[in-house]
Amino acid sequence: MKALIYHGPGQKSWTDAPDPKILHSGDAIVRVDTTTICGTDLHILKGDVPAVQPGRILGHEGVGTVIEIGPGVHDLVVGERVLISCIKSCGHCPNCRSGLYSHCLGDEGQSGIGWVFGHLIDGTQAEYVRVPYADNSLYKLPDGVSDVEAVMLSDILPTGFEIGVLAGGVKPGDVVAVIGAGPVGLAAIATAGLCGAGTIVAIDRDANRLQQALGFGATDTVDSSEPGWHEKVMSLTDGAGVDVAIEAVGLPDTFTMAVGLARPGGRVANVGVHGTSVDLPLQELWIRNISITMGLVNTNTTPMLLKLVARHKIPAGKFATHTFSFDQVMDAYDTFARASETKALKVIIARMPQLV
Amino acid sequence: MKALIYHGPGQKSWTDAPDPKILHSGDAIVRVDTTTICGTDLHILKGDVPAVQPGRILGHEGVGTVIEIGPGVHDLVVGERVLISCIKSCGHCPNCRSGLYSHCLGDEGQSGIGWVFGHLIDGTQAEYVRVPYADNSLYKLPDGVSDVEAVMLSDILPTGFEIGVLAGGVKPGDVVAVIGAGPVGLAAIATAGLCGAGTIVAIDRDANRLQQALGFGATDTVDSSEPGWHEKVMSLTDGAGVDVAIEAVGLPDTFTMAVGLARPGGRVANVGVHGTSVDLPLQELWIRNISITMGLVNTNTTPMLLKLVARHKIPAGKFATHTFSFDQVMDAYDTFARASETKALKVIIARMPQLV
Repeated sequence: MKALIYHGPGQKSWTDAPDPKILHSGDAIVRVDTTTICGTDLHILKGDVPAVQPGRILGHEGVGTVIEIGPGVHDLVVGERVLISCIKSCGHCPNCRSGLYSHCLGDEGQSGIGWVFGHLIDGTQAEYVRVPYADNSLYKLPDGVSDVEAVMLSDILPTGFEIGVLAGGVKPGDVVAVIGAGPVGLAAIATAGLCGAGTIVAIDRDANRLQQALGFGATDTVDSSEPGWHEKVMSLTDGAGVDVAIEAVGLPDTFTMAVGLARPGGRVANVGVHGTSVDLPLQELWIRNISITMGLVNTNTTPMLLKLVARHKIPAGKFATHTFSFDQVMDAYDTFARASETKALKVIIARMPQLV
Repeated sequence: MKALIYHGPGQKSWTDAPDPKILHSGDAIVRVDTTTICGTDLHILKGDVPAVQPGRILGHEGVGTVIEIGPGVHDLVVGERVLISCIKSCGHCPNCRSGLYSHCLGDEGQSGIGWVFGHLIDGTQAEYVRVPYADNSLYKLPDGVSDVEAVMLSDILPTGFEIGVLAGGVKPGDVVAVIGAGPVGLAAIATAGLCGAGTIVAIDRDANRLQQALGFGATDTVDSSEPGWHEKVMSLTDGAGVDVAIEAVGLPDTFTMAVGLARPGGRVANVGVHGTSVDLPLQELWIRNISITMGLVNTNTTPMLLKLVARHKIPAGKFATHTFSFDQVMDAYDTFARASETKALKVIIARMPQLV
């Protein structure tokens, strides 16, 4: 088969790779019909995630068709159309039993972590992929949900919802600020209303993304490259700060922005993937009764979100801005990496792009 | 009257002060029968809390007798024996209505914060004190609860429980590490069992405090001045870390210890009062699904804790190690400040020390 292979920092190619094979009884082999690229893939290509070794097939998002199952797979049959979750979860280790699928201890990858695709094992930017613990890591797709809609459920929609909205404790009437209106920030914006957010403020330096945010449910936008942006956000509150600040960038400056926006008793939900430490001013914060959360998505809410996408309650299809065929995957990366010029949100890579 | 007055960093005296008067209709004047000293008072005396101005009467903990009430006080009568909460709360501002008494917006003190005694208004280390919003800031004391037991409910017991145990989300079976076995850390240790903690590990560098911790409910103790302390804590878990790490010291090193002990999906509850910022290694933490909480006590649980103290379910009296009369308050400060030598936990200062 062909696959997108990481060859070390800055180097990748779309090239021949061995077809995946069943290794464990709970595995399935899935033909990848649709995949996409995540900001994390760009981090990996920069060399920021040293656990990813040269030779690894990248990608952790996908929709496909089951073509083979191991003898321990119970709930899937060959030919079924499935969503591939970015998280593999065995479903029965102590962490999975407590809902912490993101830290599944099942035996794939040296760290036992739930995010393995395109990280510790080969991923979804390929014609075929082996999916461990297939019963728990794949989701049957109902008719009426397109591949393009479904692939947003592999990572960005549950991540924005669980690590942004739910971890942030969004509740009815809350003023929610989302810093960074990239795909994951937009996913938080698109799902904050599920918990009753009264005001959803998109904050970014990119005018196009702020415009897009309005289409995903933002009630207000603030350009943080402009002077007075902080006061503008505060003016949307009672003056004390936002109830929930969601950080969806992954830089010290944006984390500090989020902390600075939270009202006493407020919550900071960090969704961003960070590469460096941050200075936390505990001498000012200890008295402010704020909480700070962070983490990898558990995907516990994927079935619920899938139902809402099927009922057109979440504009999942709107994330897709560009479509490519598999043999155009290098162009897809280029388009995604230059998002500020190309205005890309999510780039779709499909086996049959004319059909998506 | 006589009172303990702060004269600027390093300077205090027990001296004459004007008797307090009713200023607002909801005020009460309370004769202080029993008070104590908090680590925060020592911080103030070091000059670490610049909002405290010279001339301020210190102290935010106390038990006393109502001697005068304003016309707007409904639930108290003169002669009643009351607990003085460290937090004044109006009970009807937006923050109070959401339970955030710690950030009561009622008009006392320039910042509107709930902790005003010995901070923004005169405090309880005096023969008399004015208590604003008396209906909501004082608690009638039942017979059978001694002054010494009750004064532990002014601050340390609700702080350890709310900001440590509850904010940390302690749940049945959890392994809870409490870093710092001073009065507030011991209060967290004494109340972690209320939420079902299975293992309560006291961590300190002081052998006496570790020994004391066992009497408050710690199941294990770890001396963090000894090599291998981290491994010793880990050996009390399944190897992945503690469910909840409670920081009750207020130093960057102990905060970092707490963060390093938390398991994936775990919680860090900061109770310590910090004077400097800390370096938060988000590049390692973002993926670990931990939460970090901090704050000032709301005292929402004071009525419940008072019931448990009355039923002898919390060893409140055990915090008191030394007793002084009001005119010995300078000695009381000295004994408390040299706690590592004197083995002081809480020092009691009483109008009639022979009776407590």
